[in-house]
Amino acid sequence: MPIASRIDEVRSIVRRVRGNGDSVGLVPTMGALHEGHSALLRRARQTDDFVVVSIFVNPTQFGPSDDFEKYPRQLEKDAAVAEELGVDLVFAPTAEEMYSPDSCTYVEVGELTEELCGAFRPGHFRGVATVVSKLFNIVSPDRAYFGQKDYQQLLVIERMIRDLDMPVEIVACPTVREADGLAISSRNEYLTPEQRSAAPAIYQALQKGAEAVRGGASAKEAEAMVAAHIENEPLLELQYARAVDPHTLAEPGSAGPPILLAVAAFAGDTRLIDNIVVEE
Amino acid sequence: MPIASRIDEVRSIVRRVRGNGDSVGLVPTMGALHEGHSALLRRARQTDDFVVVSIFVNPTQFGPSDDFEKYPRQLEKDAAVAEELGVDLVFAPTAEEMYSPDSCTYVEVGELTEELCGAFRPGHFRGVATVVSKLFNIVSPDRAYFGQKDYQQLLVIERMIRDLDMPVEIVACPTVREADGLAISSRNEYLTPEQRSAAPAIYQALQKGAEAVRGGASAKEAEAMVAAHIENEPLLELQYARAVDPHTLAEPGSAGPPILLAVAAFAGDTRLIDNIVVEE
Repeated sequence: MPIASRIDEVRSIVRRVRGNGDSVGLVPTMGALHEGHSALLRRARQTDDFVVVSIFVNPTQFGPSDDFEKYPRQLEKDAAVAEELGVDLVFAPTAEEMYSPDSCTYVEVGELTEELCGAFRPGHFRGVATVVSKLFNIVSPDRAYFGQKDYQQLLVIERMIRDLDMPVEIVACPTVREADGLAISSRNEYLTPEQRSAAPAIYQALQKGAEAVRGGASAKEAEAMVAAHIENEPLLELQYARAVDPHTLAEPGSAGPPILLAVAAFAGDTRLIDNIVVEE
Repeated sequence: MPIASRIDEVRSIVRRVRGNGDSVGLVPTMGALHEGHSALLRRARQTDDFVVVSIFVNPTQFGPSDDFEKYPRQLEKDAAVAEELGVDLVFAPTAEEMYSPDSCTYVEVGELTEELCGAFRPGHFRGVATVVSKLFNIVSPDRAYFGQKDYQQLLVIERMIRDLDMPVEIVACPTVREADGLAISSRNEYLTPEQRSAAPAIYQALQKGAEAVRGGASAKEAEAMVAAHIENEPLLELQYARAVDPHTLAEPGSAGPPILLAVAAFAGDTRLIDNIVVEE
C-alpha cells in the first residue's frame, strides 16, 4: 500500500486507476484512526474499486486556541490500520505541500456555517470546506465518506458539493459509539479516567431529548432537557445544546420531528460534540 | 453542434468524450461573442480535441448598479459564431439551472480581489471565482481559455486554481483590439459614435505609460501620465489608473518593469477596462 506525500504522486496513481475504469472512494481524515474511521473505510472498501484515505491535520480549520499542536499524529500506526482494512493508497501531505505561503483562496459556505459549532469556531468550516475542496480536486473521487458524528460538517460539505456542482457523491455513515454510548473521537484520548466516565452523559442527554421530541416536545423544551442533563454532570461544561431543523440548522417551524439535537461540551480542555437526528 | 442548457446533458456528453481519450477545452463567456472570444475559441480549437463554449450572463458577478439587465443576450447569433469556429458544444444554462434559490457557497480569492476593479466592484470577483469553479466542475476541462483584457480576472482564476489544486490548465490569450487600439469588449456596443471615437484614448494612455515605465519612470509617475491622458478626453471619466506588480497587484518594489498598467474609465454609463503588462 503506497503512502504518498505529494499531490502529483496521488494524481498520477489515480489517473492510472481511472484509466482502468475503476471507481475511486475517498475517506478524508485527520489521522489518529479509530473505529469511526474504520467503519468509513470498510464502507468505502465495499463500494469502490480503489480506496484512498487522506491523513492531514489541516491547520486552517483550527482556531488560535484550538488543539492543533497537541492533536494526535501517528502516521505509522494509521498506515497499519489502513493496510489491514485493505486501503489502496494513503495520502499524507505536509502543510507545505497543501498550502503555498501566499495561499489566499477559501470556500465559504454561508448560513449553515454560522450556527452550532460555527458560532463558536469562527473560520472552522471555511477551513474544512477549503481543504475538502482541495482533496476532491487532488483525488477526484467518485464518492467521499463522512461520519454523521460531525453532522454540521457533513451538511456543509453536502451543500458545498451541490452549490459548486462538484462531481462527487457523499456517503454519510452513522456515528460509531463506545459500549456506554460515547461517540468515538480522536479527542477522547485526551480525557482523564474521570472525564471519560462523565462523558457518556452527553449521549444520554441527547437520547432523553430525542424521546421528548418524539413525544411532541418543542425544540426549546428539548434543548432545555438536554442542557439540564449535561449541566448535572460536574465534569462537563456545556457549550451549546440546540434543537434545530436538520436541513437548514434554523429554528424548527413546528414541534416534533424532524429535529437535529446537537451538543458541544467541554471535559476540561477537551471539546466533545455529538448529535441525534430525530427523523419524521 | 449541440446546445445544452442542462448540467446533466453537459456531464453526459463530456463523459463520452473523455471515454474516447479526447481532451476537453472550455471557453467561459457571457455571450455576445466578438473577435476576442473568437481568438480564444480558435486557440482552443487548435489545442483541444473537444471545445466547449459556455454562455452565461452570471448574475452573481454583477453589482446592483451594474448592467446585468441590459447586458446583450443573443444566443442564436452566438451559436452561429461558435458553429462557424468548429466548437463542439455550447453550454447555455439558465440562472435557475446554475443557482438553487438557497445557494450559499462562494469561492473567495483574498487580497488579489481587493485591488483595481475589485475595489470598485465589491463581490464581483467572488461571483466570477464561484461561477468559474462551477463551470470547471460541470465541464471538467483539461484547459480553460481566458483573455488578458480581463487581467485581474485571469490572475484571480490562476490563483484560485493553484490554491484549490483544481486540475485545469489556464491558457491566457492576448487582448484583441480594434484597428484604432480599443480593446474589443461586448460593452463597446453600448457606446455612442462620439464615445466610440473618444474610447481609443484609453489604450493610447496605456501605451504612453508603458513607454515611460520602460524609460525608468516610477509607478506613481506612470499612473499620473496615464491618468492625465485619459482626463484630457472630455467624454471619458477615469475610475482608476494604476501601475502595480503584475503578480501581486501590490505597489511595485522598484521603478521600471515588470509593471501592470491598468485602467478603468467610464464613457457615459459604459465602463471600459484595459491594461498593458510591461515585461522585464
